[in-house]
Amino acid sequence: MSRPDGRTAAALRPVNITRGWSRHPEGSVLVEFGDTRVLCTASVTDGVPRWRRGSGLGWITAEYSMLPRATNTRSDRESVKGKIGGRTHEISRLIGRSLRACLDLKALGENSIVLDCDVLQADGGTRTAAITGAYVALADAVDWLAARHKLAASPAKALHRSVAAVSVGIIKGEPRLDLSYAEDVNAEVDMNIVCTGAGEFVEVQGTGEDGVFDRDQLNALLDLGVLGCAELTEIQKKSRA
Amino acid sequence: MSRPDGRTAAALRPVNITRGWSRHPEGSVLVEFGDTRVLCTASVTDGVPRWRRGSGLGWITAEYSMLPRATNTRSDRESVKGKIGGRTHEISRLIGRSLRACLDLKALGENSIVLDCDVLQADGGTRTAAITGAYVALADAVDWLAARHKLAASPAKALHRSVAAVSVGIIKGEPRLDLSYAEDVNAEVDMNIVCTGAGEFVEVQGTGEDGVFDRDQLNALLDLGVLGCAELTEIQKKSRA
Amino acid sequence: MSRPDGRTAAALRPVNITRGWSRHPEGSVLVEFGDTRVLCTASVTDGVPRWRRGSGLGWITAEYSMLPRATNTRSDRESVKGKIGGRTHEISRLIGRSLRACLDLKALGENSIVLDCDVLQADGGTRTAAITGAYVALADAVDWLAARHKLAASPAKALHRSVAAVSVGIIKGEPRLDLSYAEDVNAEVDMNIVCTGAGEFVEVQGTGEDGVFDRDQLNALLDLGVLGCAELTEIQKKSRA
Amino acid sequence: MSRPDGRTAAALRPVNITRGWSRHPEGSVLVEFGDTRVLCTASVTDGVPRWRRGSGLGWITAEYSMLPRATNTRSDRESVKGKIGGRTHEISRLIGRSLRACLDLKALGENSIVLDCDVLQADGGTRTAAITGAYVALADAVDWLAARHKLAASPAKALHRSVAAVSVGIIKGEPRLDLSYAEDVNAEVDMNIVCTGAGEFVEVQGTGEDGVFDRDQLNALLDLGVLGCAELTEIQKKSRA
Amino acid sequence: MSRPDGRTAAALRPVNITRGWSRHPEGSVLVEFGDTRVLCTASVTDGVPRWRRGSGLGWITAEYSMLPRATNTRSDRESVKGKIGGRTHEISRLIGRSLRACLDLKALGENSIVLDCDVLQADGGTRTAAITGAYVALADAVDWLAARHKLAASPAKALHRSVAAVSVGIIKGEPRLDLSYAEDVNAEVDMNIVCTGAGEFVEVQGTGEDGVFDRDQLNALLDLGVLGCAELTEIQKKSRA
Amino acid sequence: MSRPDGRTAAALRPVNITRGWSRHPEGSVLVEFGDTRVLCTASVTDGVPRWRRGSGLGWITAEYSMLPRATNTRSDRESVKGKIGGRTHEISRLIGRSLRACLDLKALGENSIVLDCDVLQADGGTRTAAITGAYVALADAVDWLAARHKLAASPAKALHRSVAAVSVGIIKGEPRLDLSYAEDVNAEVDMNIVCTGAGEFVEVQGTGEDGVFDRDQLNALLDLGVLGCAELTEIQKKSRA
Repeated sequence: MSRPDGRTAAALRPVNITRGWSRHPEGSVLVEFGDTRVLCTASVTDGVPRWRRGSGLGWITAEYSMLPRATNTRSDRESVKGKIGGRTHEISRLIGRSLRACLDLKALGENSIVLDCDVLQADGGTRTAAITGAYVALADAVDWLAARHKLAASPAKALHRSVAAVSVGIIKGEPRLDLSYAEDVNAEVDMNIVCTGAGEFVEVQGTGEDGVFDRDQLNALLDLGVLGCAELTEIQKKSRA
Repeated sequence: MSRPDGRTAAALRPVNITRGWSRHPEGSVLVEFGDTRVLCTASVTDGVPRWRRGSGLGWITAEYSMLPRATNTRSDRESVKGKIGGRTHEISRLIGRSLRACLDLKALGENSIVLDCDVLQADGGTRTAAITGAYVALADAVDWLAARHKLAASPAKALHRSVAAVSVGIIKGEPRLDLSYAEDVNAEVDMNIVCTGAGEFVEVQGTGEDGVFDRDQLNALLDLGVLGCAELTEIQKKSRA
Repeated sequence: MSRPDGRTAAALRPVNITRGWSRHPEGSVLVEFGDTRVLCTASVTDGVPRWRRGSGLGWITAEYSMLPRATNTRSDRESVKGKIGGRTHEISRLIGRSLRACLDLKALGENSIVLDCDVLQADGGTRTAAITGAYVALADAVDWLAARHKLAASPAKALHRSVAAVSVGIIKGEPRLDLSYAEDVNAEVDMNIVCTGAGEFVEVQGTGEDGVFDRDQLNALLDLGVLGCAELTEIQKKSRA
Repeated sequence: MSRPDGRTAAALRPVNITRGWSRHPEGSVLVEFGDTRVLCTASVTDGVPRWRRGSGLGWITAEYSMLPRATNTRSDRESVKGKIGGRTHEISRLIGRSLRACLDLKALGENSIVLDCDVLQADGGTRTAAITGAYVALADAVDWLAARHKLAASPAKALHRSVAAVSVGIIKGEPRLDLSYAEDVNAEVDMNIVCTGAGEFVEVQGTGEDGVFDRDQLNALLDLGVLGCAELTEIQKKSRA
Repeated sequence: MSRPDGRTAAALRPVNITRGWSRHPEGSVLVEFGDTRVLCTASVTDGVPRWRRGSGLGWITAEYSMLPRATNTRSDRESVKGKIGGRTHEISRLIGRSLRACLDLKALGENSIVLDCDVLQADGGTRTAAITGAYVALADAVDWLAARHKLAASPAKALHRSVAAVSVGIIKGEPRLDLSYAEDVNAEVDMNIVCTGAGEFVEVQGTGEDGVFDRDQLNALLDLGVLGCAELTEIQKKSRA
Repeated sequence: MSRPDGRTAAALRPVNITRGWSRHPEGSVLVEFGDTRVLCTASVTDGVPRWRRGSGLGWITAEYSMLPRATNTRSDRESVKGKIGGRTHEISRLIGRSLRACLDLKALGENSIVLDCDVLQADGGTRTAAITGAYVALADAVDWLAARHKLAASPAKALHRSVAAVSVGIIKGEPRLDLSYAEDVNAEVDMNIVCTGAGEFVEVQGTGEDGVFDRDQLNALLDLGVLGCAELTEIQKKSRA
């Protein structure tokens, strides 16, 4: 059984990480997983929200969004609808949790970082591409802070881990890595895996989209996901070299 | 190391399922996992949303909410704030996906069911209690439809699986089943597991709240969760006997 | 002419007041007027809103809401609609005014109390049940404050009156006390009466739902309402004994 | 004891009703109770809301609003805040109920009428002025429909009652008619009374703003209010002569 | 070719400016351009928004709105819809910019002025009538501040320019001044011109509503607009004499 | 006096138009005016909004938005704030009007086109870049419709004009073409000009940001703008060749 783009089951799509894609942000990365294209920016501001002042701790949040025609069919803008949908909320929260796992908020000092992940073009795996790209934007922002002597500790202490994320799924019984949209809509099981550069799990979310899954299937998906994240970690490293 | 309420690591809290707790809904269950108390109602309406008419398929959605003082500190109402928060959205979606896994929408016929899960008192595990209780409310609603000859097939075909859910987590290195709030806030890893009555997975969501986790820890949590769901399945069966 | 449940025209439905129904709030009462079931909680917080600080005066507000399937037909959640309806606003304001009549805000000191009245099951008279139950929750919250020496005066001074409320109406020409939903929808005149424990009026709201009413009818309704409130006052006292 | 403007306790302020104040609406009335100035318009549209079609019944609603600087201190616009406040909702509902009591919806036929009551200048009693003026605008709109043969019966049958409304209150122990703002803020009891032209009650709403009231006080207020409404009915008649 | 109301192409409609139309505001003007009727109020408050404090600069904003039945067909209220439409936003911003051009914010001192322009009746040119009337309300508010010694400089310095505005357009090839609604909907080109009393431009907005326009047409419209504004400046002066 | 980037006063910044930048839309253009970078997509859907069906006319709208970190300082997302700001509304409306001037809605047939203009990076002139790019995306979408025989006439008839837009302004007394952000914030007068390919005006919007302007200055700006638009028209043509 072959995949739509001829990849093997355990292969990632071509992944590109373009740093400094836009001019204004402290960290700015265009990340591409095949045709999925996400602009991840890290915006630094002095200080933290009022209720956190004086704590000595930094603050980091993430917001995910899709351009209306990132997808095959145009979606209404959430700004026009006047509210944010459940999917957007869910993904923003996932990105935020994943990136917080990398940061020592005490070493960050009383600085705030907002990670904006805007999907310019979607072809499956937008949330995992966003996490993978946002990590690089975050690393650049931490370097920016370090260069200005604004961290409360060394950058290696502030950003003490890396994270990368990938989707895995089972299509017609076969576990596959990094699903494109055409595969995703046909998956029996869909899982997103976030790992550290050291291969530990940060987040595991598996859903039986159209059915259920057993322990063996779960294990096969976890194996694939760990491999995929390791490969993405290498690509992140190269982009920052 | 002992738990705050003296339970063993693999023990559920006392679980109560009270059917018919309120008078109006077609299914109505008060579910208690220790001090966590969720009112789950299933509301049946004839027909399906306009865009689905004529498809022969039914429709099911879920909405989760918390009373403002279900928790130790009062939260503002989402109706007063004018918008639904990310956590609420995320949990409503999880409940909906979990219950959809039980239903054959073709056998349901063009009927709609809304599952409302309102947390009256919270002490950890509200989303897993909600799924476990909502399943029983849903089963009662399917029986209600069957009794009125409104299903397109037998009730056993319409509701072809059961689901139950439980939280698991690692506290000070120890994997534990069914965390109370006091345990949840201190957990290094937090996982929600939704299983069918046959022991398959419907959904697995694990998060390193304050750190990361390895494959062995993940396996220990999955083992505990599967056992917990099996026990809950028995309690569901007894409540419906 | 007999009432649907066989009561006489001047009889209340069975009234139950369960204190301490939920664990977290400073005051927590499940009040039942027949099948109407409202959870009233009183939440205390230190201090008052910013614009009131330094005034030496306390602050009290009330919020009323209905669970979506409290009624025979499911209503959409106001949180999902993104706005609060006129009826909800109107009732929240009525509850707030009624309870404020009991409190000496100076004796309360700079403490805030929020009364949440959530209708778990509705069968007419939800707003009057809410006021009657909220008074008891408020009294428990004032005792809680007194026990912690947080009042600026004695509890008897802070809570210098009690209030209770009941609905009355005219059905097929007959004035009746404490209408159930089936009676309420058929009432020619509908009136809500809020009285103090001493039998004075706090609020009188009469509406000719399907017609008009004369002074004699109004007088008959006031007579009934005063009697009903006196009876409810006794039930409140017993619950607090 | 004398009133700020020298009136006797049972005197209305000067009342003016200007019909046809604006050009576009089917009924348009500027009503003045002293310095309170409300523009009441009645807008007719063919047909009724979708869910009411084919019922043979008409439809009528009311909306109340205040210009931001109608009052002594500027209020934020509800359109800017993005939501309607409780007071606005409450008054809109009161106006709607009061005017519905005048109309036979079957005789109106499947026509819709919206009554907009916009307070241009406020000096107490805006809701009662609005009801009194809206009745006249409504009568003009019914005539407009009759002239175009759009009613399902005679105009006298469609508009089978008149309504007028007035506020009454107790200031320093004295019952007074038609309170100005300066009196309203100092009232111990505040009551709004809506009567038909025949002297029956449509709505009675009394509140112990800063205290409570007994049956005698209530009776005194009702007496005053009935007299005031009778006088307003005469003024309405003259304006339509 | 003659205009609907018999005016010549370069004639304004009858313009009336009634100062002190309402009692509460520091400046209050009812401005009429023919049947267009706008209530412009200027509300003064001590101090400026928090982020501007200590700057020594004042603050001025404008809000435009239409009553629902100001127009031939009733529009839904923006407060009911829960959001402000693009047209309203656009006009509010235009009024604000125009009036800011008159004021020296340093001479104003740390005072805030809100200009509310509420269209009571619309017949074309509501935004230009609003600017013309708001200037007079603003001038009265500045005098009010001067009389209370609240300005940081002389009133002539604080309000160092006057502004007036008028619409111009091309109908069937003919450039015309001050379009009524009937003309406006048929205009090929529509332009709003805001000029100072000295004849300079503050704002020029021309739109080819149903087509395009060339430089000669643009020049003809600018000539007309400058003349119209000069005439309006005289009317403003007389109203303030 | 020289410009920050060394351009002459009448020079455009480097302009790039990249067609087919994203995969899904029927027309997709990345337009760059110097560092300003806007993604313009044209989304075609069959049919028109309900109220327009059967008219034989097509429908076109535009929506403008900025990514939160397109600018030097991060702005809050309008989706998070729950409402669209005045500036966004104003620009969306300007783009829509400008593009509607190009289209014959009858020749378009009952098809709808939404133009989304999302600013990925901002450095002044985002609205004029958006119009210039959106025209090209629209032309591609019209070709797409023509290729599928979905137009009611020839594409040349459907898209009977081109439009381009540019900003002009006066900085320290000097009229300049195509302002960057650094120039825009210092401009005494700021004007946006939209012209057809034939050099006619579609829209002219001039504002005295910090002062006023006379007829000579206005003429100088119009001259510059017309030249700039002519140059942009040539660039549009080349991109489509």
